[in-house]
Amino acid sequence: MDGAEQQQEGGEQKLSKKQLNKLAKQQKKQEAKEASAAQSQQQEQKGDEEDVSAGKYGTYGLIQSGEVKDIKFTELKDIDESMHGQDIWVRGRIHAIRAKGKTCFIVLRSGVYTLQIGVFVTEKVSKAMLKFVSAVSRESIVDIQGTVQKVDAPVESCTQKTVEVHAFELWVVSAAKGQLPLQIEDAMRRAPTEEELANDKENKLATVNLDTRLDNRVLDLRTITSQGIFAVQDGIGYHFRRLLRQRGFREIHTPKIISAASEGGANVFTVSYFKGSAYLAQSPQLYKQIAIAGDFGKVFTIGAVFRAEDSNTHRHMTEFVGLDLEMAFKFHYHEVMLTIGEVLIGIFKSLQAEFADEIAAVNQQYPAEPFKFVEPALVLKFADAIALLRENGIEIGDEDDLSTPQEKFLGKLVRDKYKTDFYILDKFPLAVRPFYTMPDPHNPKYSNSYDMFMRGEEILSGAQRIHDPDFLTERAKHHGIDISKIQAYIDSFRYGCSPHAGGGIGLERVTMLFLGIHNIRLCSLFPRDPKRLTP
Amino acid sequence: MDGAEQQQEGGEQKLSKKQLNKLAKQQKKQEAKEASAAQSQQQEQKGDEEDVSAGKYGTYGLIQSGEVKDIKFTELKDIDESMHGQDIWVRGRIHAIRAKGKTCFIVLRSGVYTLQIGVFVTEKVSKAMLKFVSAVSRESIVDIQGTVQKVDAPVESCTQKTVEVHAFELWVVSAAKGQLPLQIEDAMRRAPTEEELANDKENKLATVNLDTRLDNRVLDLRTITSQGIFAVQDGIGYHFRRLLRQRGFREIHTPKIISAASEGGANVFTVSYFKGSAYLAQSPQLYKQIAIAGDFGKVFTIGAVFRAEDSNTHRHMTEFVGLDLEMAFKFHYHEVMLTIGEVLIGIFKSLQAEFADEIAAVNQQYPAEPFKFVEPALVLKFADAIALLRENGIEIGDEDDLSTPQEKFLGKLVRDKYKTDFYILDKFPLAVRPFYTMPDPHNPKYSNSYDMFMRGEEILSGAQRIHDPDFLTERAKHHGIDISKIQAYIDSFRYGCSPHAGGGIGLERVTMLFLGIHNIRLCSLFPRDPKRLTP
Repeated sequence: MDGAEQQQEGGEQKLSKKQLNKLAKQQKKQEAKEASAAQSQQQEQKGDEEDVSAGKYGTYGLIQSGEVKDIKFTELKDIDESMHGQDIWVRGRIHAIRAKGKTCFIVLRSGVYTLQIGVFVTEKVSKAMLKFVSAVSRESIVDIQGTVQKVDAPVESCTQKTVEVHAFELWVVSAAKGQLPLQIEDAMRRAPTEEELANDKENKLATVNLDTRLDNRVLDLRTITSQGIFAVQDGIGYHFRRLLRQRGFREIHTPKIISAASEGGANVFTVSYFKGSAYLAQSPQLYKQIAIAGDFGKVFTIGAVFRAEDSNTHRHMTEFVGLDLEMAFKFHYHEVMLTIGEVLIGIFKSLQAEFADEIAAVNQQYPAEPFKFVEPALVLKFADAIALLRENGIEIGDEDDLSTPQEKFLGKLVRDKYKTDFYILDKFPLAVRPFYTMPDPHNPKYSNSYDMFMRGEEILSGAQRIHDPDFLTERAKHHGIDISKIQAYIDSFRYGCSPHAGGGIGLERVTMLFLGIHNIRLCSLFPRDPKRLTP
Repeated sequence: MDGAEQQQEGGEQKLSKKQLNKLAKQQKKQEAKEASAAQSQQQEQKGDEEDVSAGKYGTYGLIQSGEVKDIKFTELKDIDESMHGQDIWVRGRIHAIRAKGKTCFIVLRSGVYTLQIGVFVTEKVSKAMLKFVSAVSRESIVDIQGTVQKVDAPVESCTQKTVEVHAFELWVVSAAKGQLPLQIEDAMRRAPTEEELANDKENKLATVNLDTRLDNRVLDLRTITSQGIFAVQDGIGYHFRRLLRQRGFREIHTPKIISAASEGGANVFTVSYFKGSAYLAQSPQLYKQIAIAGDFGKVFTIGAVFRAEDSNTHRHMTEFVGLDLEMAFKFHYHEVMLTIGEVLIGIFKSLQAEFADEIAAVNQQYPAEPFKFVEPALVLKFADAIALLRENGIEIGDEDDLSTPQEKFLGKLVRDKYKTDFYILDKFPLAVRPFYTMPDPHNPKYSNSYDMFMRGEEILSGAQRIHDPDFLTERAKHHGIDISKIQAYIDSFRYGCSPHAGGGIGLERVTMLFLGIHNIRLCSLFPRDPKRLTP
């Protein structure tokens, strides 16, 4: 592409010569700085002895895509005894480093995998190199070339237990600068018991509090716990889509900026919209329903959902990821409810089959019973749940909604009786559900609606929706809703609409409850609550 | 579950008897209304003659999940000559209906498929039934039982051309009420030429303007064009994820509510956040980058992106769906750029292989040349593109950004010269890119950044990002940015970060340009622009 080169020499309308020079200087300065450590190192020993490692260590300088190096890297997770004696290249972070005399041991980390690296002064490795290596800061990213060695005793501190690598070349790719605000090891440590703490004279069992971890999320995400949590979360989304697609669902995208507050205007964020104002959607429900009335048949959508609730609990956030679905059915909403149950059970099975290591890693920090479920999903009628609670001493009315402690207690009772952490509660009292919920045809005190629970906490709320505009109008009036404000919603059903039902699941809640973690903020990359908007 | 039934008889704390009675009455009234048409129909002919079709037509009444009917439905798309003589049940909408004497023909529609239904007065079908059927309104959903019949001449008006169904049972599932604000046929008609219009004496070539279509999106979504567009859009998301997963990417979710405006505060929506205020994210870039610094390696995210731009063009919306990705690389950002190119080409190939019918259906209304591409993707240097434009009479400086007409013209030139509607433009002038863009190491006038184009319009913008905090600070200062406002962003790179690059794609733009449609609003289920916030 010679034309390009020639033209680059030409006119300099946009950047003045002065600016260009400045820029060039900036770059040079940068490169010089990056390389200086290695140079000074090598100068230091001039005249002393020849450095057998010269050109085999240092920093690359800023990787600016200036050249392509012909290096084939091996992933840490793929290194085992079968590779004994091979020379390989690896890239990873300095997780831990410890030098003593003529040896230096590094724990190199890449994702959830760790490998022991030994650097020993030999005929191939100079003292100068050892000195350079020993000074590389924790969390720096390095490229290492070395020879794979089988070990006699397992390396307990690493995931790759049967091998280590004896390094003879090491380059700093990106240096961690300055003091780390937290240690990775501390951020992923199980909270010690009081007894353990009392015996911890050398403060070896330090942990990091939640706010510090979240403030320094860029470090906290590197812990094996976080890596495991978000691998599982990714798996939930993947299998949710996979299982719905198998069943003929299509993915849609619904707007987050809406003109009218969806359910009466409580708990909704207001947005300045040019000269007017708008709101952030609390749920994609209206839009999923229009998609059904628009003949999409079976739809799902995964996206941000907003709740302006001033709730500072372990399970509320102001923004979370909704896994929402809606489905036209032929005659009975159980067609939909049971489909959702199947999909959730399919997700649990896939997670347990594919993420055993990640689940175990997370449970190291947050011990939990394995998630139990039965197949097909247990379906309990609301009235039966009330009976079960009453048998166990809870006073509750037929049409009372469950309080959070009652849900938790019910979860325990159900687990004892039915051996499952997941179940569906069907036929909620009509009085506690929104106006668009279809009443039970056989008993008007109840409704065609359901919640689903994991470890005693609600993860999904759903129902058959009223698809007849006249009946919907009557029910809205019954609830005292101003019809003029929801006329567009009602009119969506005026041109014929399939009977349909659906529900919405909170992705972070499913992640939290499946893993048995006790705070939802750990299951959101960048959680938002009334008090946290950063990072 | 007898317990449940018993308890339902019990206390009525929540709804008073009066309320319950009212509710029961509402339901009864509804059911009565729904069934009345059929009854009056059947009463009308009492004493006249026996109705051989009695109990074989009418309305179901409101489907409230009161019972499960044991009916096996056949999908319209699956009906062909091999089923000749079989009695089947189908559910669909009345797309068109035409009665004459003792016959009635219906075009039944389900999704993009249509089937001809014949209703003939015979020993199995009464005059009364024919009368009832003839009065069912367009767009109503019906269940039909009938016999599959091979036809001699193809049914030109339907997708199922070799068969029709002779009905002997018909039930209204959900009636379309009142006048339709637009006709489905009109909303999906290709804009007639002036000549065609001049000859259209009977107004048979009516079309529906965009605003009316969007105002009545629930009907407009039912057109074969809309069904095709959103099937293709679903396919884009599906294959984007599939191809990235194959390459080791993981899906993440980034917050939409942020504490600071990402790029200087222009074009950003403000949100009231409890007692303070916040902003809507214009891009997930910062968060993707933290994920990279947090050792996620390769990430993608699909979600809403917000731009408070007062642009009322064919290709701008205030909210759209971003397909974003970010990837750590070893030595050169081309590792990333070429991965994105591969993924996009993989998407195009899959769409053409899987959605030929949908593409053809959309092109019936919006004629377009098939989308052309070469494999591997064509990569042009920015400077070469400038040269090509100059050769063709455009005056443009080396470091000028391309205007929209120049992009379009360049698209034509590239298509003529290289036979591709898709290409990558690499090495943009540094001056026209954001401060965090990595400068070209060989020529500081240029940068390690790229755009990708389809049919001459930009669909992706991306770059290698600066991953060194000191250099990033220098570049931000050079751009006159207040460092204190982006300190958290800069600090994300302080603890070591892999070199990385990425980009963001607009889902609706890819849909629009792949299909050759001329307005992005048609490719968003519920488009948002400065003037539209509904439905």
